[in-house]
Amino acid sequence: MTTPWPAIDGIAYGGDYNPDQWPRAVWDEDVALMRRAGVNLVSVGIFSWGKLEPSPGRFDFAWLDEILDLLHGNGIAVDLGTPTAAPPAWFFADHPDSRVITRDGTVMGFGSRGMVSHSSPAYRDAIVRVAGALAERYADHPAVVLWHIHNEYGTPVSEDYSRHSVTAWRSWLRARYGTLDQLNELWGTAVWGQTYHSWEHIGAPAAAPSVVNPTMRLDWARFTDHQLRECFSLERDAIRRHATQPVTTNFMANQHWGTDLWEWAKLVDVVADDHYLTAADREAHIGLAIAADLSRSVAGGKPWMLMEHSTSAVNWQPRNVAKRPGEMARNSLTHVARGADAVMFFQWRAARYGQEKFHSAMLPHAGVDSRVFREVVDLGATLQRIDAVRGSRVEAEVAVLCDFESFWAQDLEWRPSEDLDYRQQLRAYYERLWRDNVTVDFALPSHDLSRYRLVVIPSQYLLRADDAANLTRYVEAGGTLLVSYFSAVVDEYDAVHRGGFLAPLEPALGVWVEEFLPLREGDSMTVVTGDGASLAADMWAEDLVVTGADVVATYEDGPAAGKPAITRHRHGAGHAWYVSTRLDADALRQVMRRVYDDAGLAPAALPDGVEVVARRGAGETFTVAVNHTDQAVDLPFPGTDLVTGHDTGGSLRLAGGAVAVVRADDPDRSIPEH
Amino acid sequence: MTTPWPAIDGIAYGGDYNPDQWPRAVWDEDVALMRRAGVNLVSVGIFSWGKLEPSPGRFDFAWLDEILDLLHGNGIAVDLGTPTAAPPAWFFADHPDSRVITRDGTVMGFGSRGMVSHSSPAYRDAIVRVAGALAERYADHPAVVLWHIHNEYGTPVSEDYSRHSVTAWRSWLRARYGTLDQLNELWGTAVWGQTYHSWEHIGAPAAAPSVVNPTMRLDWARFTDHQLRECFSLERDAIRRHATQPVTTNFMANQHWGTDLWEWAKLVDVVADDHYLTAADREAHIGLAIAADLSRSVAGGKPWMLMEHSTSAVNWQPRNVAKRPGEMARNSLTHVARGADAVMFFQWRAARYGQEKFHSAMLPHAGVDSRVFREVVDLGATLQRIDAVRGSRVEAEVAVLCDFESFWAQDLEWRPSEDLDYRQQLRAYYERLWRDNVTVDFALPSHDLSRYRLVVIPSQYLLRADDAANLTRYVEAGGTLLVSYFSAVVDEYDAVHRGGFLAPLEPALGVWVEEFLPLREGDSMTVVTGDGASLAADMWAEDLVVTGADVVATYEDGPAAGKPAITRHRHGAGHAWYVSTRLDADALRQVMRRVYDDAGLAPAALPDGVEVVARRGAGETFTVAVNHTDQAVDLPFPGTDLVTGHDTGGSLRLAGGAVAVVRADDPDRSIPEH
Amino acid sequence: MTTPWPAIDGIAYGGDYNPDQWPRAVWDEDVALMRRAGVNLVSVGIFSWGKLEPSPGRFDFAWLDEILDLLHGNGIAVDLGTPTAAPPAWFFADHPDSRVITRDGTVMGFGSRGMVSHSSPAYRDAIVRVAGALAERYADHPAVVLWHIHNEYGTPVSEDYSRHSVTAWRSWLRARYGTLDQLNELWGTAVWGQTYHSWEHIGAPAAAPSVVNPTMRLDWARFTDHQLRECFSLERDAIRRHATQPVTTNFMANQHWGTDLWEWAKLVDVVADDHYLTAADREAHIGLAIAADLSRSVAGGKPWMLMEHSTSAVNWQPRNVAKRPGEMARNSLTHVARGADAVMFFQWRAARYGQEKFHSAMLPHAGVDSRVFREVVDLGATLQRIDAVRGSRVEAEVAVLCDFESFWAQDLEWRPSEDLDYRQQLRAYYERLWRDNVTVDFALPSHDLSRYRLVVIPSQYLLRADDAANLTRYVEAGGTLLVSYFSAVVDEYDAVHRGGFLAPLEPALGVWVEEFLPLREGDSMTVVTGDGASLAADMWAEDLVVTGADVVATYEDGPAAGKPAITRHRHGAGHAWYVSTRLDADALRQVMRRVYDDAGLAPAALPDGVEVVARRGAGETFTVAVNHTDQAVDLPFPGTDLVTGHDTGGSLRLAGGAVAVVRADDPDRSIPEH
Repeated sequence: MTTPWPAIDGIAYGGDYNPDQWPRAVWDEDVALMRRAGVNLVSVGIFSWGKLEPSPGRFDFAWLDEILDLLHGNGIAVDLGTPTAAPPAWFFADHPDSRVITRDGTVMGFGSRGMVSHSSPAYRDAIVRVAGALAERYADHPAVVLWHIHNEYGTPVSEDYSRHSVTAWRSWLRARYGTLDQLNELWGTAVWGQTYHSWEHIGAPAAAPSVVNPTMRLDWARFTDHQLRECFSLERDAIRRHATQPVTTNFMANQHWGTDLWEWAKLVDVVADDHYLTAADREAHIGLAIAADLSRSVAGGKPWMLMEHSTSAVNWQPRNVAKRPGEMARNSLTHVARGADAVMFFQWRAARYGQEKFHSAMLPHAGVDSRVFREVVDLGATLQRIDAVRGSRVEAEVAVLCDFESFWAQDLEWRPSEDLDYRQQLRAYYERLWRDNVTVDFALPSHDLSRYRLVVIPSQYLLRADDAANLTRYVEAGGTLLVSYFSAVVDEYDAVHRGGFLAPLEPALGVWVEEFLPLREGDSMTVVTGDGASLAADMWAEDLVVTGADVVATYEDGPAAGKPAITRHRHGAGHAWYVSTRLDADALRQVMRRVYDDAGLAPAALPDGVEVVARRGAGETFTVAVNHTDQAVDLPFPGTDLVTGHDTGGSLRLAGGAVAVVRADDPDRSIPEH
Repeated sequence: MTTPWPAIDGIAYGGDYNPDQWPRAVWDEDVALMRRAGVNLVSVGIFSWGKLEPSPGRFDFAWLDEILDLLHGNGIAVDLGTPTAAPPAWFFADHPDSRVITRDGTVMGFGSRGMVSHSSPAYRDAIVRVAGALAERYADHPAVVLWHIHNEYGTPVSEDYSRHSVTAWRSWLRARYGTLDQLNELWGTAVWGQTYHSWEHIGAPAAAPSVVNPTMRLDWARFTDHQLRECFSLERDAIRRHATQPVTTNFMANQHWGTDLWEWAKLVDVVADDHYLTAADREAHIGLAIAADLSRSVAGGKPWMLMEHSTSAVNWQPRNVAKRPGEMARNSLTHVARGADAVMFFQWRAARYGQEKFHSAMLPHAGVDSRVFREVVDLGATLQRIDAVRGSRVEAEVAVLCDFESFWAQDLEWRPSEDLDYRQQLRAYYERLWRDNVTVDFALPSHDLSRYRLVVIPSQYLLRADDAANLTRYVEAGGTLLVSYFSAVVDEYDAVHRGGFLAPLEPALGVWVEEFLPLREGDSMTVVTGDGASLAADMWAEDLVVTGADVVATYEDGPAAGKPAITRHRHGAGHAWYVSTRLDADALRQVMRRVYDDAGLAPAALPDGVEVVARRGAGETFTVAVNHTDQAVDLPFPGTDLVTGHDTGGSLRLAGGAVAVVRADDPDRSIPEH
Repeated sequence: MTTPWPAIDGIAYGGDYNPDQWPRAVWDEDVALMRRAGVNLVSVGIFSWGKLEPSPGRFDFAWLDEILDLLHGNGIAVDLGTPTAAPPAWFFADHPDSRVITRDGTVMGFGSRGMVSHSSPAYRDAIVRVAGALAERYADHPAVVLWHIHNEYGTPVSEDYSRHSVTAWRSWLRARYGTLDQLNELWGTAVWGQTYHSWEHIGAPAAAPSVVNPTMRLDWARFTDHQLRECFSLERDAIRRHATQPVTTNFMANQHWGTDLWEWAKLVDVVADDHYLTAADREAHIGLAIAADLSRSVAGGKPWMLMEHSTSAVNWQPRNVAKRPGEMARNSLTHVARGADAVMFFQWRAARYGQEKFHSAMLPHAGVDSRVFREVVDLGATLQRIDAVRGSRVEAEVAVLCDFESFWAQDLEWRPSEDLDYRQQLRAYYERLWRDNVTVDFALPSHDLSRYRLVVIPSQYLLRADDAANLTRYVEAGGTLLVSYFSAVVDEYDAVHRGGFLAPLEPALGVWVEEFLPLREGDSMTVVTGDGASLAADMWAEDLVVTGADVVATYEDGPAAGKPAITRHRHGAGHAWYVSTRLDADALRQVMRRVYDDAGLAPAALPDGVEVVARRGAGETFTVAVNHTDQAVDLPFPGTDLVTGHDTGGSLRLAGGAVAVVRADDPDRSIPEH
């Protein structure tokens, strides 16, 4: 394995650690308790700019020296943060023009955390200075095994309408389009009289009397992400001038959608992700699985780091539901199951002060004699017992497309129905596969998909013509493709494809879309299959023009009554399905069963609520089983449960709420190389 | 007919045409397809300022010359737009002080469409320049039969809180009030210590710590409308200096309520209206009928132009429901039935780019082999077959008052209940009349109403004393008047009438209102008539003081339990009804039946869901029937159905979803002159 | 009685009077009608700055001289207002920098009413000037018996983010913290890198990319209240330099929560309160009772003035429900029952113009021949008949804690659940006591509580350590304490108490909280008592650690299933209860019955919907009974009903909707001195 993994012995375990918030006396207690819990890695300094550089260019490293030495002396490695997600008070005072301005003109000031303008020259100078100074000082510190740049790029703010941003935007557009003629053509500025005759006339897509040009807004999203990546790269390069440890930043997969993680993953040495449950979702662990699979996928299948999650409740949701006994371990092991070789938390010790004081921690306000801390100690021990999974890989036979650009484009104003929801569709298809214990990778339409039996497109509003050709070739070569509605509508400039909606995929699908038929709020429909089964659908229908596909199901009522609803097309050696409406969960189950057949997939029948993922090692397989129900189940997994150390005797008895990692020999198996 | 109707042969048929969004090669295809569809008029240039005047004062007419010639050569007339609804990028860059500022101080920039400040001297100069240049060049172009100024005045922005607007506002107020003493008196500035001692101290009614003086806000609405009309007049006059074709602009009747269409209609040569269905409304065709009747009414009964509607879905509503087969024709014929002699669409060819790409068009993304284009061709043929209706008139025996100023006043903050909704009441009464196939005109309370058997006032919160006297005289002379609650509350300065609420109408109604009794959310009441019928009501009751009226129904419960709810008063030769609560649809049906009796109206009993309106020509009547149901119906209309060319044999068989225009001789009939 | 009560003969009766809104001729009618109604006090001049000082420093008192003389000549005393809640147009024009700026940067202009910056030097100069000029002129006017400064401080705006405010804020913080180190420590600025190294770097807690430091925001709330109090004191001192009449301002108890009424009450000579029913609340009279008890409590038990309420509907709520016959009298007498010796209204005559024209008045738009005016005349007569209650006192055996600072802190962002609602909990506990006819005082946790049998803490999120000790001593000394959930969480700096949530009260309660367990929206739970009763609960549970208490009830389900829900602890001579969840009304009834037993309280069993409060005079008791039902009831109250003049014969027959004031001898009773 050539991954530049941080030099940690075992699965990384620990969390954000903010010693600068506590008196010196507490540090010793912290380190002692970390040892008790099995902590081997902590992230330090993420919000410490004001402490490290109390005035511009004057650094104070004494406290950081001391804590790094203390940690190292206790065998705890350090993921050293650059503090650039929270510029200090003096920065805001000295550079008021660097403050972020929102779309409606509100100036974002100090007093919270969060970025200044990603395009501010003063900010860019300052981050290079502070990251460089840190790297210079700690390049050779034995505690430091990883550099952690910034924090959750894109949150809590990303877009910036300040003048620094507008200046950078014009440069970015010039580089992208070359000439104004090209920009006018591809933005379609002839619509609504938006033609530009000077680069200087182009502003940010800020508040305007009506909806702003969507191509401009799509480019603005690309630009914003680009600027953040530039900031990251500036810091990374400043660090690399001095230091050799791997460099990362913490993503927010399936939570923050403003950063294109496929692009970001190219910039980091190791993918790291933060994940927090959506408390209102009673099956939030499905969203967690999406986040974990997405993290692994953007990492190219290589192990990744769970950089933050929570031991119990968070503090920023409307109702911050606490995790129940065992839930933290189930969450952690699910991340491991899906490729994480690190289990980290925000944060080590609960804060007494400030915005996050009600966020849970490894060491809660209640102290060591508490459910949470006991479970933290247990989890540390468990991770040590399952250490053998490190470096093994997850293999998937199914890919689900997940394209940030398409999401950005679809999410703009004035789409045919505001009920069109990319993330809801992603979840709906993923959830079906999850319930069937089918492990998936995420992918882009431009990827080589040939290793997958099935490719699912929950929604791909924006689809480039060459990507459509790639998908078509995938089917031709024998793949099974399922495309859901409102796909292949526009190209990369948000221009409608010639030939009608869905036209670029018509060769593969044997169908295209004459007209969109959104439903009124609350309306529903019935779709009937050829063998007479009734499927419930709602929200959306389409007027399909079948050019070669077989009609699998027909609209019984609603705006497309009597017309095709679901089609299947034999194309080359493969099959391509099209689903033109939003099916309910049961309907989707029935349809996917037939799609699995086409793909030659035979999902194992396991008890409901049990999640099973395999990691493949050299000559062995680790089957991670997570029981989300409160009933014990029996699972046909021979091998040794590393969590308990017991041989399953061929059938694993998994208690309600419990987790297992069953190691089984698999002599022919090598670690997959993606 | 002396109407300055554009020189078009037949009912005008076509739509907005934006050739500047397409390559030259597409133009030829467009014109050929227009001919196939029977298009005889297109609107050109509405958003082309940036193309026409690429830099200030430098014009480029070459492309426009070419397309006008091409259209003319193919027999298609042109409605030539002035592009002033979307000033170009250079205008925003050169005149940043001309940008619209919202009530809370947000500056509205470029990147969308929409106005700059209606009071900006630079804007006013620029529109005179561009409109004049266009008129000078095309005054004698044979294609141009109509001038189309601006676009949907008042949308997407109208109010402007910039300094240019404030300067103009002070002048407008000086002209209106003469002295500050007069303004202080009539605005009631003694309340909350708002007395002004200098004109320069008067600002816009922008964000303030609490609710702003309502008279100030009402005047601001008047001022805003006035400024927009001034802009229109400036352009119109610039055009008339060169050209003789009629001039219009496109209204938004029953959609945008910020412009007083009674005033606007005085400024145009021919009334034109845009109408889009409210997709969430399953009976949106009733709102369409309101819009059409209102367009005809402000036009003084003369034929008007449907300048825009849609072939199918629009793109800017939450859920853009597509029209179903036949619906476009039903919509179009309903407009014709209610006085339109033009059926135009936005737009000819669906846009590939930009904000409106999901708006349907005559030529959709799906191309010519599509349901929509086939129906467009059919509709063109239908309009040619019914050409005889041109110039005929609609006659109504009932007037419904629709006063924009009263709406503006009622819609301000701090009314007795936020459930008071002028437009909801207008719809409720109109809908009752629509279901009874009673054709109505809209009118102002100052109008001569003597030709109507019945005048209905759904709500007239603001009623001038002399207008009340006009209504009283109408009753005295034998008219039947129905007044709904929350009427005659204030005068034109939003000051409560002396003598109690409703006092100005007390002579006619024999009742006035001691106190308003709004209900809590969700509460309902029963009202009982003298003959024991129970009527359902909700939202609002009043404590009535009966001074002469007969009590028709009494509150059984609720805050006015035991008190009069509905009264009827014989006054002079007429009758005046008062309904002090919000009745449900069935209750309103029962009450209106008795009101019709008083008015001597006997609505024909036709099948539900069939809409019938008559247009009267010289010696003939055209009965337009629209079947909104999916069942065939038989209608007792002798004559020839111009749509099919068949004689009805006395009874028209109208298929589900179909339309008919039955021409019958009516020898004594002449075209009414309003 | 040493209260500096205004020199009025009898219970004060009247309202705001704005003669400057009316022609001179109306004044004579007003005064005549006031006499008919028994009015003996009116508040004049509250919004008259623009009339009194038409340009800076130039005063016009002529109209005020005239009306004061007219009122005095008719025996009507005057509460003379300073007009400083509505600076005139010239002030806004001359001092644009004094305008209030909102948190998001919106500038609040003229055109409404409401404050400018409370920290503007120009504003402070101007209010001293106008208050001083008024006091100098009218110090010896025989009509003036009371000075009324400003209006409803804190409404409609209080917070100000202008530069004047920021400057004052830095001074206030310097005075509070002394050093930046102290501020950094106690604000916890180490969190999110907010450390300050210069006072000049501290801004207002305005719009920021994420949530602002909560301690900063809590201090900002304190600062805002402090600035308003400074403004009050400046005016008060300016008046006292000339005049000797008592000085007050009108509070908004239980309506506006931004002013700490405990602090404000120290500044006024007599407590005055405005109260308006919440129309959407069908039992708004319970909220009224809270307001009245809170007014009396902050007044230290002394009589207070109801400065404003309404005769019928107000105008600023979503649905302004009119009072029904008798409701105004019931409201008024409830205020009297709870300690008011004044019954005043906004306003005397309904305004024809402006924002408040739909607010009811003593003399409504309908004039004298109206229900409202007849009831006003009746109420005046009733107040004269019950004049003997003046000066008597209310005695309560129960205290409910009501701490504004704790509310401010709890109301900030990012609490464990957004359903945590301080005011809802206050209402829930108060309502239970109200239904049991248990009269309560409100108190602070720092108060001497020894005279109460029971102290109830609906929620005390912020609890200082020494206040916790005070409560513990109260229990030790034999008191009964009930504490509801989410209490004693943080100290005065919003820092979590060491030792876990609730730790400061653990000695008294015998329990502390390991973790908060908020529920998802709509979820509910059952709690089971030791004797098997099932109690319904929702929204919130806690993971309790019992250290000494008895478990009274246990969670049957939900996130804390099987764990203690309600505990009772014997501590010293008293008992301390803890309720860790939100009980429904019936459950709360059952629990409180047992708590009453501990406290030795035996609430009288009276018919539902009847409200009874006693006022104690020297040797006599006045029992005020208010029947909120429409059924007559019999109440075991011997004595004379002052309202009717009849002896009850031992049992008062109280008609539906009626009020009574039963005077009974009580020879051993003296007026309590708090």
